[in-house]
Amino acid sequence: MTNQQKQIFAALDAYKAAVYAKDVDAFCAIYADDVRVFDMWGEWSYEGLAAWRKMAEGWFDSLGDERVAVEFSDAQINISGDIAIVNAFVSFSGVSAQGEKLRTMHNRITSALRHTNGQWKIFHEHSSSPADFETAKVMLKR
Amino acid sequence: MTNQQKQIFAALDAYKAAVYAKDVDAFCAIYADDVRVFDMWGEWSYEGLAAWRKMAEGWFDSLGDERVAVEFSDAQINISGDIAIVNAFVSFSGVSAQGEKLRTMHNRITSALRHTNGQWKIFHEHSSSPADFETAKVMLKR
Repeated sequence: MTNQQKQIFAALDAYKAAVYAKDVDAFCAIYADDVRVFDMWGEWSYEGLAAWRKMAEGWFDSLGDERVAVEFSDAQINISGDIAIVNAFVSFSGVSAQGEKLRTMHNRITSALRHTNGQWKIFHEHSSSPADFETAKVMLKR
Repeated sequence: MTNQQKQIFAALDAYKAAVYAKDVDAFCAIYADDVRVFDMWGEWSYEGLAAWRKMAEGWFDSLGDERVAVEFSDAQINISGDIAIVNAFVSFSGVSAQGEKLRTMHNRITSALRHTNGQWKIFHEHSSSPADFETAKVMLKR
């Protein structure tokens, strides 16, 4: 693995750690100020870090004393110059205050990162699950 | 607009033309052999062009004498070296054999392209619509 690929995996690790810690500042530190997110839930897009930060605050607040353990699998990373694109399958598991895994939801994520001032930051993210053609409901189990 | 940006917009135009013509070969010519697609409907991923071609054949066959007019809006393009990332909102309108617009569905698309042998080809694509948190149904109107 190249040094650059390691840096992209480190950004994924930073995402996992920030979500598990429910740390809004650490979460936002992974994203560029001009980020555009096509998130799986509720909104067509979040334009800019302030909007995305509000999403994170609402998400982490909604968890009560639960935590969310994130796992990435089958990641593909492509890097050219100061841009990287990573896509992967993701699982989000609710974990009780006692450390028990309560439920798991799957989705897919594509993140585009730009290397600026020595740091990779996500400037575009797209997450989703496929929808069933008959019911139009998203599938939450892979 | 730079020459490279024009080339990326040309790839979007090629997509629109191929879909409107229901031309499977022209559609597949836009994609790399190793493409991974996170499509909005039915499948967690299509791995490789043969799988994606089968999707296109099924899609175009299902249209009968209708056509699909694609429009992109609010596109953002980032290019570095031989990789480009474009994200946009998309509308797919069913058009009758008589040229009448029948219905329109919205979604969001992220495409990653690689420049190889003088041509930009999509090696990763992700399309979706956001899901309503209460019903888990995807929204089809923006």
